[in-house]
Amino acid sequence: MKKFIIGVDLGGTKISTAAALPSGRILAVDTIPTLAHLGVNKVIDRIASSVIYICKKADIKLSEVRCIGIGAPGPVDAVKGTVLNPPNLKGWKKVYLRDILSKRLKKKVVLENDANCAAIAELKFGAGKKFSDFVYSTISTGIGGGIVIGGKLYRGNTGSAGEIGHSVIDINGPKCSCGLPGHLEGMAAGPAIAKRSGISPEQLNALAKKGNKKALKEIRFTGKLIGIGFSNVVNILNPEAIIVGGGISNLGKPLFDSIKKTVKVRALAPVKIVPAKLKKNVGVIGAVAICL
Amino acid sequence: MKKFIIGVDLGGTKISTAAALPSGRILAVDTIPTLAHLGVNKVIDRIASSVIYICKKADIKLSEVRCIGIGAPGPVDAVKGTVLNPPNLKGWKKVYLRDILSKRLKKKVVLENDANCAAIAELKFGAGKKFSDFVYSTISTGIGGGIVIGGKLYRGNTGSAGEIGHSVIDINGPKCSCGLPGHLEGMAAGPAIAKRSGISPEQLNALAKKGNKKALKEIRFTGKLIGIGFSNVVNILNPEAIIVGGGISNLGKPLFDSIKKTVKVRALAPVKIVPAKLKKNVGVIGAVAICL
Repeated sequence: MKKFIIGVDLGGTKISTAAALPSGRILAVDTIPTLAHLGVNKVIDRIASSVIYICKKADIKLSEVRCIGIGAPGPVDAVKGTVLNPPNLKGWKKVYLRDILSKRLKKKVVLENDANCAAIAELKFGAGKKFSDFVYSTISTGIGGGIVIGGKLYRGNTGSAGEIGHSVIDINGPKCSCGLPGHLEGMAAGPAIAKRSGISPEQLNALAKKGNKKALKEIRFTGKLIGIGFSNVVNILNPEAIIVGGGISNLGKPLFDSIKKTVKVRALAPVKIVPAKLKKNVGVIGAVAICL
Repeated sequence: MKKFIIGVDLGGTKISTAAALPSGRILAVDTIPTLAHLGVNKVIDRIASSVIYICKKADIKLSEVRCIGIGAPGPVDAVKGTVLNPPNLKGWKKVYLRDILSKRLKKKVVLENDANCAAIAELKFGAGKKFSDFVYSTISTGIGGGIVIGGKLYRGNTGSAGEIGHSVIDINGPKCSCGLPGHLEGMAAGPAIAKRSGISPEQLNALAKKGNKKALKEIRFTGKLIGIGFSNVVNILNPEAIIVGGGISNLGKPLFDSIKKTVKVRALAPVKIVPAKLKKNVGVIGAVAICL
């Protein structure tokens, strides 16, 4: 009886692995450090071990698993099953992760960009359940996205659709992690907020909750920048909703109010700005969901 | 025998009307001034007359026409058949043009945004024939666009997808025709070029062709701005190609070279930048094509 599903969320700092029922319901999750500095082969060893371990933890046999889904930092070529050259996984360059793991574990393996995984997770189990056309955006160290059209993930021509963080909103703006100036990511993701305010987004959040006006102003300014980026997405794609996840979305009401206010003025069409439902485990739930 | 098709391209300054064979092949075209200042009802009278006249000119009977397609300046609600409030047609506010004309002429009428019409025209008869996923962009007095996904027009949730001219590329940039700052249209469409250079795009083109360095520099700068806007579109949508039409595309090689150079550096995925094939009559060919 092969029916269970395993999801792996491969990140720059940690690997989360889950075993799930055929419905997608999670049985067990485990998280280990990636130890990316040990190199590609060691990390692949760690992924394989985490799959074996999660089977034990969930009391299932690997022989009963019908599919392993992996979410990896973009860019990913989902068709060829390769991790290309993610800024967050140094040393990885066109790694045929899908086929390597499939051979090693003798299982069907599916590979997808992590933001796309999260978009599918929200579609199947989260805030995206009621929309057929939406954009999912994760705002944390970077700003990524996944596009759902007609209830399906839209990958574009070469699998890189949804990279909304790398859209210019200020031609004279500061440099992004990718090296180009004025990108939404380079102006509104975690590191940009920290650089501008001098403190971490978490500290900013704590201050804002105590009513600190400077902190609130900084959060609202971040919301304005995100709102401008989202308005571009709305004017180009006209989705029904934008679902917002990632650590920065924890800045909560002042952030969302500012995003909504900006979008209302700047977007040509109405759009619902909705917080993501799945929090901590969205990546691994998405890695399971791409097998469904 | 009802088989012929009529297309109407309703513009702010002129109405072009064509009669076509069932294949979409144009039999005759006629163009009259819109005289928009005479008001909505008079303009609708003129459209109806132009349909009657083009039948005579093409030697067909109105009873033999199976569909009339109308391209109108956006925003258009293609589902409800209404022209909403186009900046280029003053006084038009939620006009049920489709149903009014359908009743008047006792014919099936289809209404669509003019940029979407042009995208469909390029898809069926022009540079889009070899692509199934592309973005069409028209650059003239404004910058509009149409998105084709899987060989079909993608309208988005409320029919406004493809408004790439109204995407911010410079939060501190000059005002667009819509009143908002830093839009691609407000920085790279005809009026913006004229304002920046002090002469018309046509004069600029003539000077550039004579080797005038200042004119060439201005055209290249415009290409850079358009290239930044296109890179945003590529990073968000990852189309196979962007097809570029409209009067400003006549600035030719220096413009296209600059667009391509910019996109090569700034877009995450490769994309073909292709000049539109259909020139003068693209609007009316598109109006025919939406009936096919």
